[in-house]
Amino acid sequence: MNTASPSPAATSPLPVCVLGLGLIGGSLVRDLREADRPVFGWNRSRSTVDAAAADGVDVSTDLVATLRRAAEQDALIVLGVPVPALPSLLDAVAEHAPDCGLTDVVSVKGDVLSLVTDHGLAARYVGGHPMAGTADSGWDATMCGLFRDAVWVVTHDNARDDPAWVSTWRQVVEMAEATGAVVVPARTAAHDSAVARISHLPHVVAEALSITADQGGALALSLAATSFRDGTRVAGTAPRLVQAMCENNRDALVTALNETLDLLTSARDALADPDGDLGQMTRDGHDARLRYEARAGRTREAPSNRPFIQVQPGAPGWVDQLHYAETVGAQIGVF
Amino acid sequence: MNTASPSPAATSPLPVCVLGLGLIGGSLVRDLREADRPVFGWNRSRSTVDAAAADGVDVSTDLVATLRRAAEQDALIVLGVPVPALPSLLDAVAEHAPDCGLTDVVSVKGDVLSLVTDHGLAARYVGGHPMAGTADSGWDATMCGLFRDAVWVVTHDNARDDPAWVSTWRQVVEMAEATGAVVVPARTAAHDSAVARISHLPHVVAEALSITADQGGALALSLAATSFRDGTRVAGTAPRLVQAMCENNRDALVTALNETLDLLTSARDALADPDGDLGQMTRDGHDARLRYEARAGRTREAPSNRPFIQVQPGAPGWVDQLHYAETVGAQIGVF
Repeated sequence: MNTASPSPAATSPLPVCVLGLGLIGGSLVRDLREADRPVFGWNRSRSTVDAAAADGVDVSTDLVATLRRAAEQDALIVLGVPVPALPSLLDAVAEHAPDCGLTDVVSVKGDVLSLVTDHGLAARYVGGHPMAGTADSGWDATMCGLFRDAVWVVTHDNARDDPAWVSTWRQVVEMAEATGAVVVPARTAAHDSAVARISHLPHVVAEALSITADQGGALALSLAATSFRDGTRVAGTAPRLVQAMCENNRDALVTALNETLDLLTSARDALADPDGDLGQMTRDGHDARLRYEARAGRTREAPSNRPFIQVQPGAPGWVDQLHYAETVGAQIGVF
Repeated sequence: MNTASPSPAATSPLPVCVLGLGLIGGSLVRDLREADRPVFGWNRSRSTVDAAAADGVDVSTDLVATLRRAAEQDALIVLGVPVPALPSLLDAVAEHAPDCGLTDVVSVKGDVLSLVTDHGLAARYVGGHPMAGTADSGWDATMCGLFRDAVWVVTHDNARDDPAWVSTWRQVVEMAEATGAVVVPARTAAHDSAVARISHLPHVVAEALSITADQGGALALSLAATSFRDGTRVAGTAPRLVQAMCENNRDALVTALNETLDLLTSARDALADPDGDLGQMTRDGHDARLRYEARAGRTREAPSNRPFIQVQPGAPGWVDQLHYAETVGAQIGVF
């Protein structure tokens, strides 16, 4: 799916500076090294830095020195820390590397965009969300190939003709493609609404299903089979992770929850009415699932199930192409 | 897990007569033949009977002749038809084989118990529910081994010291064990409440999740990953099957849905309140899922995760043992 791009960025890419070497940031560093891309990193924890250095990574605990190096080399800075750690990190970026391209790997984009804007860093910011596993954490959990065939959402809220922003957008897309991810463009609000529906909502619902079954006592748990097993799998995720991602996307998740509550309330009312039936709901749900399945063949081997759009960054109308791609959920390639 | 039973029933078992050769009834016939147990069957459809006969099954389209044979041989009759077909089938059983042991393989037990009682057949009725796949149907979908390691719920609402009832209960348990299933005893109301929570509720919720994601449009479906895939898997089940099983268990499902609605409403309210949090819910859901996982090792290789109780049918206090097993969700063996 990667095009053999003739652009200078691809043949001699600028370095990437990853701030925070958790599961996502650390795995990104591993993939970029594997792809022979220049990359260096920072982490607050000495033990993480020692572990990463032992694996051959160019890494430091000195944030100021790392950011000055990024500024000198015009590196693309990747914010790889949780949302609560972002304000102080952005303070440092604004002070020591304000002109670098900036992206992030945080799963909700609204808060990040606000913080970046508040820090005066929006002019070269392109948000990112690699949709890959988050259950484990720390350097030991990092791996090559974590993002292969996963969707990497790249935002374009600040899309402008400014060559520096266009260049950053291209760098972010090429970095994502270097990891084997599939790039889908979306603006912040559309992204946050979509992930509320397809990720945060399923997590909240899995918690409710687990609790309801448990309230049925030992017999219910003994009888639970595959429908329960799969429907509650993500309730096995660490509670603090589920809590954090849901609470960071409150507005969009409330909207999605209200729609689900309406559907389940209607189902309850239909069942409580001897003449009520679930015909429409079961047909609608089945149709919706089929539409997802038709789209879900998202690997390189079966790319045709999702629309694919070629984009030339900076060309006339290219931002309209991104908007269109967002509307139809297309993946993109750059040339 | 099967005990090498010294009882006459095990060494020279009475025949089983299966009425209805769909996925469940047909697969049961195959398993009993494989276990060298005497078995014969009936199906309304000539094409099904021809297909089964071609596979060597002793089968007929003549219901009256089949029931007279069952009466002559004191066979255990298995009701293997959907609930709407039960009344006319029970009319025929009451007329031609009223003294045979009687069981069924229907997924909701309340309606069956009522119908059996209305037909004056409760004295030798022991309900059954093999919790195995139902997505495909017809003789072509039948297979040996469908029930291996699955739970087969056996009811005991009519438990009495009458030797005929005790004998039927033992026959049903031994038949289930002959298929490799794990037997869990439960009375009708407890069974129907439990399956509402762990099967019917997850199906309704999966429909609602699918529809909510679909309402997010193409982008949401493009971003959907494993949490959505697993949380909505059973929305891929044929709508009429989901509708039928939910509508056959209305009261219990309404109770379960109300509990889930309360939980999701609380979550929605917490998210809509800037000071609200999902801490308690995510911890409770995680704890509940861990309790399920601790119990889920239900194969012969790891039987210890579910309590196991040996029962001697007809011995003093044995019905109390069944009630206790129901309460703790235990699997049982007979000796």
